[in-house]
Amino acid sequence: MRRIRVGVVGLGRLGRFHAQNLAGRVPKADLALVVDAIEDTARSVGAELGVEWSCSIEDLLGNDTIEALVIATPTPLHAEMIERAAQSGKHILCEKPLSFGLDPTVKAIEAANSAGVKLQVGFHRRFDPDWRAAVDRMQRGELGDVYLFRTSLRDMKPPSIQYIESSGGFFVDVTIHDFDTARWMIGEVDEVTSFGSSVAVPAIAEIGDIDTALVVLRFASGALGVIDNTRAAGYGYECSTEVLGSKATARISHHRRSHVQWLTAGQAAEDWVADFTERYPDAYRLELEDFLTSVAEDRPVAVTGEDALAAFTLCKAAEESFRLGKTVKLEHRRRNGEVLYDKAGTG
Amino acid sequence: MRRIRVGVVGLGRLGRFHAQNLAGRVPKADLALVVDAIEDTARSVGAELGVEWSCSIEDLLGNDTIEALVIATPTPLHAEMIERAAQSGKHILCEKPLSFGLDPTVKAIEAANSAGVKLQVGFHRRFDPDWRAAVDRMQRGELGDVYLFRTSLRDMKPPSIQYIESSGGFFVDVTIHDFDTARWMIGEVDEVTSFGSSVAVPAIAEIGDIDTALVVLRFASGALGVIDNTRAAGYGYECSTEVLGSKATARISHHRRSHVQWLTAGQAAEDWVADFTERYPDAYRLELEDFLTSVAEDRPVAVTGEDALAAFTLCKAAEESFRLGKTVKLEHRRRNGEVLYDKAGTG
Amino acid sequence: MRRIRVGVVGLGRLGRFHAQNLAGRVPKADLALVVDAIEDTARSVGAELGVEWSCSIEDLLGNDTIEALVIATPTPLHAEMIERAAQSGKHILCEKPLSFGLDPTVKAIEAANSAGVKLQVGFHRRFDPDWRAAVDRMQRGELGDVYLFRTSLRDMKPPSIQYIESSGGFFVDVTIHDFDTARWMIGEVDEVTSFGSSVAVPAIAEIGDIDTALVVLRFASGALGVIDNTRAAGYGYECSTEVLGSKATARISHHRRSHVQWLTAGQAAEDWVADFTERYPDAYRLELEDFLTSVAEDRPVAVTGEDALAAFTLCKAAEESFRLGKTVKLEHRRRNGEVLYDKAGTG
Amino acid sequence: MRRIRVGVVGLGRLGRFHAQNLAGRVPKADLALVVDAIEDTARSVGAELGVEWSCSIEDLLGNDTIEALVIATPTPLHAEMIERAAQSGKHILCEKPLSFGLDPTVKAIEAANSAGVKLQVGFHRRFDPDWRAAVDRMQRGELGDVYLFRTSLRDMKPPSIQYIESSGGFFVDVTIHDFDTARWMIGEVDEVTSFGSSVAVPAIAEIGDIDTALVVLRFASGALGVIDNTRAAGYGYECSTEVLGSKATARISHHRRSHVQWLTAGQAAEDWVADFTERYPDAYRLELEDFLTSVAEDRPVAVTGEDALAAFTLCKAAEESFRLGKTVKLEHRRRNGEVLYDKAGTG
Repeated sequence: MRRIRVGVVGLGRLGRFHAQNLAGRVPKADLALVVDAIEDTARSVGAELGVEWSCSIEDLLGNDTIEALVIATPTPLHAEMIERAAQSGKHILCEKPLSFGLDPTVKAIEAANSAGVKLQVGFHRRFDPDWRAAVDRMQRGELGDVYLFRTSLRDMKPPSIQYIESSGGFFVDVTIHDFDTARWMIGEVDEVTSFGSSVAVPAIAEIGDIDTALVVLRFASGALGVIDNTRAAGYGYECSTEVLGSKATARISHHRRSHVQWLTAGQAAEDWVADFTERYPDAYRLELEDFLTSVAEDRPVAVTGEDALAAFTLCKAAEESFRLGKTVKLEHRRRNGEVLYDKAGTG
Repeated sequence: MRRIRVGVVGLGRLGRFHAQNLAGRVPKADLALVVDAIEDTARSVGAELGVEWSCSIEDLLGNDTIEALVIATPTPLHAEMIERAAQSGKHILCEKPLSFGLDPTVKAIEAANSAGVKLQVGFHRRFDPDWRAAVDRMQRGELGDVYLFRTSLRDMKPPSIQYIESSGGFFVDVTIHDFDTARWMIGEVDEVTSFGSSVAVPAIAEIGDIDTALVVLRFASGALGVIDNTRAAGYGYECSTEVLGSKATARISHHRRSHVQWLTAGQAAEDWVADFTERYPDAYRLELEDFLTSVAEDRPVAVTGEDALAAFTLCKAAEESFRLGKTVKLEHRRRNGEVLYDKAGTG
Repeated sequence: MRRIRVGVVGLGRLGRFHAQNLAGRVPKADLALVVDAIEDTARSVGAELGVEWSCSIEDLLGNDTIEALVIATPTPLHAEMIERAAQSGKHILCEKPLSFGLDPTVKAIEAANSAGVKLQVGFHRRFDPDWRAAVDRMQRGELGDVYLFRTSLRDMKPPSIQYIESSGGFFVDVTIHDFDTARWMIGEVDEVTSFGSSVAVPAIAEIGDIDTALVVLRFASGALGVIDNTRAAGYGYECSTEVLGSKATARISHHRRSHVQWLTAGQAAEDWVADFTERYPDAYRLELEDFLTSVAEDRPVAVTGEDALAAFTLCKAAEESFRLGKTVKLEHRRRNGEVLYDKAGTG
Repeated sequence: MRRIRVGVVGLGRLGRFHAQNLAGRVPKADLALVVDAIEDTARSVGAELGVEWSCSIEDLLGNDTIEALVIATPTPLHAEMIERAAQSGKHILCEKPLSFGLDPTVKAIEAANSAGVKLQVGFHRRFDPDWRAAVDRMQRGELGDVYLFRTSLRDMKPPSIQYIESSGGFFVDVTIHDFDTARWMIGEVDEVTSFGSSVAVPAIAEIGDIDTALVVLRFASGALGVIDNTRAAGYGYECSTEVLGSKATARISHHRRSHVQWLTAGQAAEDWVADFTERYPDAYRLELEDFLTSVAEDRPVAVTGEDALAAFTLCKAAEESFRLGKTVKLEHRRRNGEVLYDKAGTG
């Protein structure tokens, strides 16, 4: 087992989470450097994990012993960092979305492709043991043809308005994970019709965004799907999926904080997870492990830049559908084995 | 406790179910007569239950000792029977829908109103202890404002093509229950957008109908809702509802055939209900009991003809939305405390 | 379907429950008379249910149109009433235990046997659909050989000390149901070792009784079993059973008040039943229905006086085991197809 | 965060599991050496994990850069290894039991104590997040006084007869974990009464052992407890605990392989874990992490040699109770803050 020396850029909540995993919970990883523009942040994370730290990505890109990096900076920085990392020959795991724009997304993907480095995108759910178990059975044919797909992604509480204003909008910030899950589990999407509301958090309405959405999908197979998302579930974080098929129906969910049932007068209660760190500790570890295995064994990554592009295009289609109150149709074509999405009109 | 003498007209599957309940499981009922156009059917049900039988509704309408009747005939006969029963001064519990047309529905309701007899419609879910428990807590304010509504109604297997052809179409036959539940739990509906597919049962596509549908609702409150229905769930019958609110979220479901968990190598399994008779034995009993209490105590029925009319109008809006691929908007106005729906256009 | 005219004697909580069921929820029943020594009680129950009432059992025994009676009086009256009812040729459903003494129990059984009337004992769990579903599968051989049996019967709160003082003691009052279940599901019991404590309710200790017990069983097959009982579960009423077998393991439980999950910040909760009336509405109805079917069709009852005797003997063995701190061994012999238990010593 | 250099001795199933965790999933660990008497085993594990290997414990004990070791050899080697590791100044995590004899157990503990090295015993359940969550709430007083304790530990399939013959007997091999859990959660045990059977695996009976046991505990507090264990659960591995208290009741269980529900005609099924590696991946990691934290921060270990001694004494009491068919009473006294158990007689 060869260990890969890795750096992490961007030490916000998710970047720190990745760095902690790389520092001691991912067998294949050797965390070499943590980078953040804010010196206090970089220094304290470096000290906590016992690794080098820096305020400049140059220290990472210029270090020949480091083979790969994880990008967890704010989204507007992603695309340029991918290009520079690609030029430096580093393999890249980048958080979603790759960019808020279509052109920079495409350019970043092409930069990685032409440099011959691996570019994986942070759709962690693909590595969660629960989703994997269901997909494995589906791929073995145990579920049959898909008739209906349902998925929920719900946050317990809305983030700050400041965060939301720079989030790229509801569909790009939240629904993108479900679009990736839909493509991964069911296949390509032909039509998107979306609906939004902001009755839960009036302050979100004031900045022209929504807090709750329903997105109806029609897959290329003819099957229907529906995504529901909210920033204000109140009871906790939820990520659940159902696939109804001709031979079986799969339901995936996992929401308990622990497997303790607590009984008091007239009631049985269980604790519910509060956020993605409580729900997905395994998925994030396995995501890193799989990325490093791709690097070590020089095999294709499990989630490509093109997957990020497809999910992003679906987000944009959902935005347009919501704005126009109409269904948006999509076309997809294949290039080098990857699917590319184009808008085909509204109806 | 005064017992009410009741007759049942139409002894198909549901009519027999009602007759059996009235014969021995509904304390307030005294089953007096069962009627079916097919003599063999009428005779055998009468014999099984130890009550009089007849092939003619005249024997029921002309019998002054009978105060009420349950109409469970095929839908095309409902409206006329309601009118005749109303003229005979009988109180009426009629299965849904009241008719396949808007005008006969209105006429039947008016006939009951002007005759001063009670007309209750068979939306049994309103009487199910599980739904009641959730609605009771909602009405006490424990759930707060509603942010999202989700409901599923799924049959295990499609009925015969012959049945489907005379069913009034998917939305009228299946979705109608969910429209009533939506109005009962959340409130009036402003917009309906519906989607359908027939990948599960190609024979249904051939007769121009669908086997699976998604219907997105926008309520007058601004909240969103989504209904999913299918005729081909495969695993069993399912009727589940979720209401996500500002103070709490309620989930209602009940699908086990028994409360036995059966463990075999590597697996824990539970039996799932196959149809509405397995899922709703209590709801159907309590529906009859509530109807007879309304008669005995001369108080308004819990589900009115106007409720049936509103649900039917929503079904028609869903059909139109599906046909046009557009959202259908609705207006509602009040008359004598009842809400009436009008189509307001498509957008 | 012939209806049987029935009377109920003893209109305490359980007697009223039976009378209500007989009055309108048991198809085969025609409730003819309710009897209680307290005139107010008899009159009010009669008025509520719209049936005749009396303060004297003579009015029941002397009424030739009444074929059967349900005895729900305090236990000390059971045995004599059974004898008199038997002499009057009435079929009998009697609550457990038949008596607090072995001799009166035997005498009552013999009275019924020699009069040729049916005597069924109120072990309602045998009629519960959940237990029935499990036993049906076991009887079809799906569970295989039994390796371990576990069962719990727990009350939410202790009854009054006054009730407990006249209850016949913990094992006779509570554990008797589990002994019957053990025999019904698994088979005859060879050894009983019991343990008790009274840490939950000190007042119970003061009158020399216990509030919590564990009873270990060794079945004739060699398999082990354990019963746990308490009067102070606190969270609610619980009745659960597990049978671990060579081919499968069955778990039976059913404790929700409704099938609503109520989610609030960080928690998912469900309501738990408070007592046997919430847990066993179906079992009590089906028990009466099965008894009346036995009468109508003149077939043996499902739970015999000899079953009551066996369970009672096991209660007495448990008492002795607890008192001595030793295992009590039992022998069983067959007489006319029924199993009779004898104590075989302590070890 | 200081990393501790650790060696693992004994590379059977559990030893390899520990070594894999130390090699990449325990942040505080630096796996330095793996040792097994069989050269092929040592070499292949070393190669797999990319660490040094040896066939001799001398290479570990003589290496001054290694601070701690994990002992996962067959039980008969434990005590001597503990003594030698203690003499070499290494901190020790040893699998249970410390020995099959009382004297070697005491001697090993004293060797560690007098050498001033840490000795932790492998009761991994104490580190499982589910048990921890329940115990945390109990320690905050949320459960109140304990009235009843129930716990199950069940293996899916019996190990080989060869393993069982050298396992130290059923109670020492299986029940020991439950005795530790009982002491940890509830407190000291005054009386043990045990029951065994071997109906599941006749071959086990032939070598004089049992495959299934019930053990009744009376705690010093007066509360009752019951343990059930089997080697032949058939459906899978199960470890569940219930604590019934005056304020609340806690139930701990976690048996799903994944959080996927798989629905097929009439059935909802979930996959069950097969063994302790599937059930306890987190507990084993956290056990190692806690041990290394104790070493790094020089604080007492969470599970002491004296805890192992107490659990072992309870196993011996259970054996004696089973052999004699009597209750065995225990006394406990404190020495240096640790509880020591003595047999007080049989009754």
